[in-house]
Parts: sequence; structure tokens; C-alpha cells
Amino acid sequence: MSASVQDLETPALLVDLDRLERNLDRMAAYTAGHGLALRPHVKTHKSPWLAGQQLRRGAAGLTCATPREAEVMSAAGDNLLLAYPPIGTRKLERLMALPAPVRLTVALDSAAAVEPLAAAAALHDREVGVYIEVDVGMHRVGVCSTAEAIALARLVRARPPLAYAGIAFYPGHIRARGSEQAPLIEQLGAALAQLLAELDRTGLAPPVVSGGSTPTAWHAHEIDGLTEVRPGTYVFNDRATAELGACAWDDCALTVLATVVSTAVPGQAVVDAGTKALGREPLPGAPGQGFGVLLDRPEVTVARMSEEHGILDLHATVWKPEVGERVRIIPNHVCIAVHLADAVHGVRESAVETEWPVAARGR
Amino acid sequence: MSASVQDLETPALLVDLDRLERNLDRMAAYTAGHGLALRPHVKTHKSPWLAGQQLRRGAAGLTCATPREAEVMSAAGDNLLLAYPPIGTRKLERLMALPAPVRLTVALDSAAAVEPLAAAAALHDREVGVYIEVDVGMHRVGVCSTAEAIALARLVRARPPLAYAGIAFYPGHIRARGSEQAPLIEQLGAALAQLLAELDRTGLAPPVVSGGSTPTAWHAHEIDGLTEVRPGTYVFNDRATAELGACAWDDCALTVLATVVSTAVPGQAVVDAGTKALGREPLPGAPGQGFGVLLDRPEVTVARMSEEHGILDLHATVWKPEVGERVRIIPNHVCIAVHLADAVHGVRESAVETEWPVAARGR
Repeated sequence: MSASVQDLETPALLVDLDRLERNLDRMAAYTAGHGLALRPHVKTHKSPWLAGQQLRRGAAGLTCATPREAEVMSAAGDNLLLAYPPIGTRKLERLMALPAPVRLTVALDSAAAVEPLAAAAALHDREVGVYIEVDVGMHRVGVCSTAEAIALARLVRARPPLAYAGIAFYPGHIRARGSEQAPLIEQLGAALAQLLAELDRTGLAPPVVSGGSTPTAWHAHEIDGLTEVRPGTYVFNDRATAELGACAWDDCALTVLATVVSTAVPGQAVVDAGTKALGREPLPGAPGQGFGVLLDRPEVTVARMSEEHGILDLHATVWKPEVGERVRIIPNHVCIAVHLADAVHGVRESAVETEWPVAARGR
Repeated sequence: MSASVQDLETPALLVDLDRLERNLDRMAAYTAGHGLALRPHVKTHKSPWLAGQQLRRGAAGLTCATPREAEVMSAAGDNLLLAYPPIGTRKLERLMALPAPVRLTVALDSAAAVEPLAAAAALHDREVGVYIEVDVGMHRVGVCSTAEAIALARLVRARPPLAYAGIAFYPGHIRARGSEQAPLIEQLGAALAQLLAELDRTGLAPPVVSGGSTPTAWHAHEIDGLTEVRPGTYVFNDRATAELGACAWDDCALTVLATVVSTAVPGQAVVDAGTKALGREPLPGAPGQGFGVLLDRPEVTVARMSEEHGILDLHATVWKPEVGERVRIIPNHVCIAVHLADAVHGVRESAVETEWPVAARGR
């Protein structure tokens, strides 16, 4: 393909391929350099092509959240983690129907999740690795005590073809800026050390200790005992990640290309990317800061939105946009912008080099 | 089909067909009873089947926001309004390529929108009706003065095959509860009366005066001069509409079926519908009230979310959900929940009677 960005209809997702490759290389080098297994979460890109790029750079496997993601990613890699409790007959059926070469691991936090999974695995004669999910402070999923983790690990051990494969956690609550992050990472490390010591004492030393979000991934080497990280956002990054200082602004690889469709109301311009393209995702900790920022004009944010309208606040800029003019918006939360799109366009400068579908976005 | 709701994988969108039919009938009867043309906005359902149900009940035409919606809806009806400025070469090409029987109208608010549209229409020898979009207080799109409206209407008149077809506005800012709405409707009526009088004086009396959101649609008969309404949400309704009092709770026809996947963290239960199924849409005017409410347990809301996790706050309920249990969530904003889904299941009681794709959701 040799199309130009100017020929694309808007809204459209653009990925700067140079930035993407730099992001992929950097995380691969970081994890390799620290002897950490990288199992990137595909929820961010939902693309088997991009998963292939991660695996070619040394990723040990892939992380998925839904059966659909696992099905689509089985074309890219055969070591898949479902980092989500596999609850419900249909979901178990789909997991068991994954191609035979797939080595499947799931993360769970209840006996109620273990029993049907064990039955399904036995019925299909399929070994399934199990991570015990532990809550390290986000209070979303995960057992809240070492005793519960031990009980669950023992239950899994008693239910072949399930295999106790390790523990998993998601430190999504650690979103501090810069130096404020250090004590939180230290606290996480201390809690983890205590858990690991007790597991060790009970003969349940986990083969894998799996953690990590994009903001904490770069601190993974500071956490003793961690063996695997599962960042997703790092491939593209986004405004929230840059605002946190977990990437530089010019590491933001994905933008939403949009067209100014109205300047009728003074003090603002309306673009054709609203909640149905960007998602209504506030900046964590800064809900009044809008829903995205212009790549080339950081003084302009998407201040309000309707479903198909993004309203650019022009009060802080000398720029006078005209109807038909195009802008590139760095979304607050890139995983949602991708989930809302059919396809992503890979660009270098103004050339559209490639396009890939967001293949795993359905159910 | 004779499937049961229990056989559906979650998350899944369910539409109670009895409620849907009642909602369709009620708006059809209201508009017919008051001599108003009903041109429902398809953005809510994005389904040509549902558009057909609206047209069979007397809808005069359909309202779309995107070229994709117009293309898909051209299979259901041949009187289409694009209630969105048609900016950009590709969008104009797609609009001009709509099947010949389609009578196309567009709403716009700038001379910059008129000129390329006129050129495209002339090139394709296609008459295109134009509504002049006016801002009645929402401050999104729309000209802000009568002088601008007059100038634009004149410009359109001077550019055949464009045809000046009327004025349009969207009173999305009127979201008051109950009796607080009356003065706002009155104010809107007064502003409109003044505009219509001036247009009349200048020989630009609009053939159509098109307005209406779902909350204001039921007041359309109180607004002198209004000839057409474009509600979308009324087909399904949602938590925001019910909280406003613009529908009864048992008019909420669409729910998101979800499964409890974790109860590990005390005081909450996690279901498999998060921002990628519900959208992160706060209740207008009540941002702390969560993102949806359980159909059968109004004391339980979706208090927090991750992409695939909805966190039910259990503090106000005696209910003790178990892993595997299913719930039905009334989303805050139904248009977004539909936009996030591939398909919708039509149900009566526990039987799944039909399923339709969200055909017009792409770009």
C-alpha cells in the first residue's frame, strides 16, 4: 500500500511504526536484560500480527482477557495465559477447543472457578496451568490472604490435569508519578516477599510469579521474586501513561486522526472523534483534564464529547482551526480507542504503510 | 431459535421484546397524535431490522450520524438524514454513492460544509436537502445567530442541486428532572419562535423544523413550530433516561447480561462486563453514582470498572452473589453499550427469540 494519511477517512487510528518498533524493542531489551519473562497483554492491540512482533522479539507467551482474544491469538503463539477467571460453561468450552498445540494457563481466585475448569480439562484430557490470583492492593480480583492462596494452590494440585503454575497479581493501583512510585513498589515487594516465603514454607513455591502493568513494568527488576511481567499499553502508550511519566510523550505511537467538522460555537472546534472513537476515559486522578490531547498542540485537549463529537477547547491556543482541517489526538486510554476501531493504520511520516484489523475485539 | 438466556455466553446484550415494542408503539402514537414527523436516530440501535420496525410504525425517515450508518440504513429506508456536518472528500463520496432511491438530507452549520457538498451533489446530479443546524444552548454544533442561519440558508438556496429543507437543532443540554424541565422547554420554544419569525420575514420559512432528544421528545407538542423529532434512546431507554424521569424503570428494554467471576474481595462482586461492554459513561449530573444498576436489585450499582471487570458494590444489599451467578445490568448510556457489542439478543422471559447484528457500528 502506498496511500497517504490525507486519503484516510476519519476518525481513523494511526500508529507511528517507528515509535511502535522502538516501544517493542525497549520492553524486549528491558525484560531480557533483567531475566524476566515478558508475556504481553494483547488487550491493548488485539492483533495477532502485533502479537507476532512481540513474540519475535522474545516474548515468552501472550496474555489474554477473553476467550475471543485467546482464539485469535492462537494463530500467533501457542503459550497463552487467560488472565481472567474462566467462569461459565461456554467460556470453558471455547478454552478447551483451542488448538491442541496451545499451552493454556489461566488465572483464578476461587474454588468455584477450579472445579468446573478441572472437570472440563479432564473431559478434554488437556493440561491447564493455573496461576493463583492474589490481590496486592488494587481490590479488583485476587485472594486477600496467604491462607486462601495456599488453600487454592492445594486444591489445584489435587485436580489434575490442572497444574499449579504460579501466582499472578495486577498492581493497577500503583499509578504514582516519578519518585512517588518508589515507596509503593517497595511496599509491593515486601508484601510479595512475605507471601513467597510462606508459600515456600508450605511446599508451594510458585514456578512463576507473574505481575506487572505498563507503569510498574519498568520497576519489575526491583521486585524480588518476580519472574514474569504482563504489560499491555507499552506497545502504543497513551496520554495517561505519558502524564504518569511511565513513557515519554514521543513514545506515544497511536493517535486518532480526526477532522474538524464545526467551528460555529466560539472558543471551540468540533472534531469527528467522540466517545464512540475515543471512549470517555478520564485521566486517572485528573478527571477535569479532558479525554485526549492533540499530538502537535499539547495546549489543546478534547474537553467534552458526545458520541460522534469531540470538542476541542481553544482557550489556551492561538491556533484557529478551519473546518476540514485534520488533527491527531493522543487518547487518554489507548486500549479503549483500539477496542472501538475496526482497523489500525501503520504510518511513517505521511505514508500509510500497512493496515491491520483489530481482530480480537469481538466476543 | 429457541435458545435460553442461560445458554448465552456473557457479556451479552439482551433486549426485552415486549418492552421494546411498547417503547416503539408509544413514541409512534405520541408523534402521530401530535402531527409530528418521527425521524428516529439510528445511532442507538444501529440495526436495519429495528429501523424497519420504526418505519412500519409510521416513522417518516431515519436519522444517521455517520456514512456507515447511512449505507446500512439505506437497506431499511429511503429517506435518510445525516444529522452531522458532512466534512471530508471520502465522506462525501460515500454519501453520493448511496442507492439512487435514497432521499438524502444533511444538517450543517458552515459555508465550508456547503461548498464541497454542492460540488459533489452537482457532480453526481443528486438533489440533497440541507437543514441549517442552529445552536439552541447545547454549544456543540450549530450557528449561534439568526443572521448566520439566514446567510447559510441563502447560500444553500444559491447552490442547486442543494435544497434548503429546514432547520435542525439538538437540545441535548435539556436534561432536567420532572417539573424543572418546563421552564427550559418554554425558553427553547421562545428562542425558536423568534428565529422562525425572522426566517419567515426574510422569506426563508423552513419547510421542516427538526429537533428533539429522547428526554425532550415527549414535550415536542409544547414547542410551537416544531415539525419533526429525532429521538434515538427511546427504543431501549437506559438508566440515565429513567433517572431523569423521561421513562419509567420498566421501560428499560436493554440490559447487559453478565456473570459473577469473582467474590474474593469483601464487599464487592466482579462481573465480566467492564468498560469494554458498558462504556465508562457517568450518570449525567451524578458522576459518583456508578456506571449501571442491576435490573432486579436497584440497590446494587456497577461502582468501578476495568476493561473487562465491572465491580458491583454490595454494601447496600443483603444479596450474597456467588461465582457463576448471572445478573442483568441496565447501562447508564445504552447507545454506547450497543456500540460496543457485535449483536443483540431479543428475549421474552427466559427465551431468546431472535438475534440481530449491530450492523452499522463500524466506520
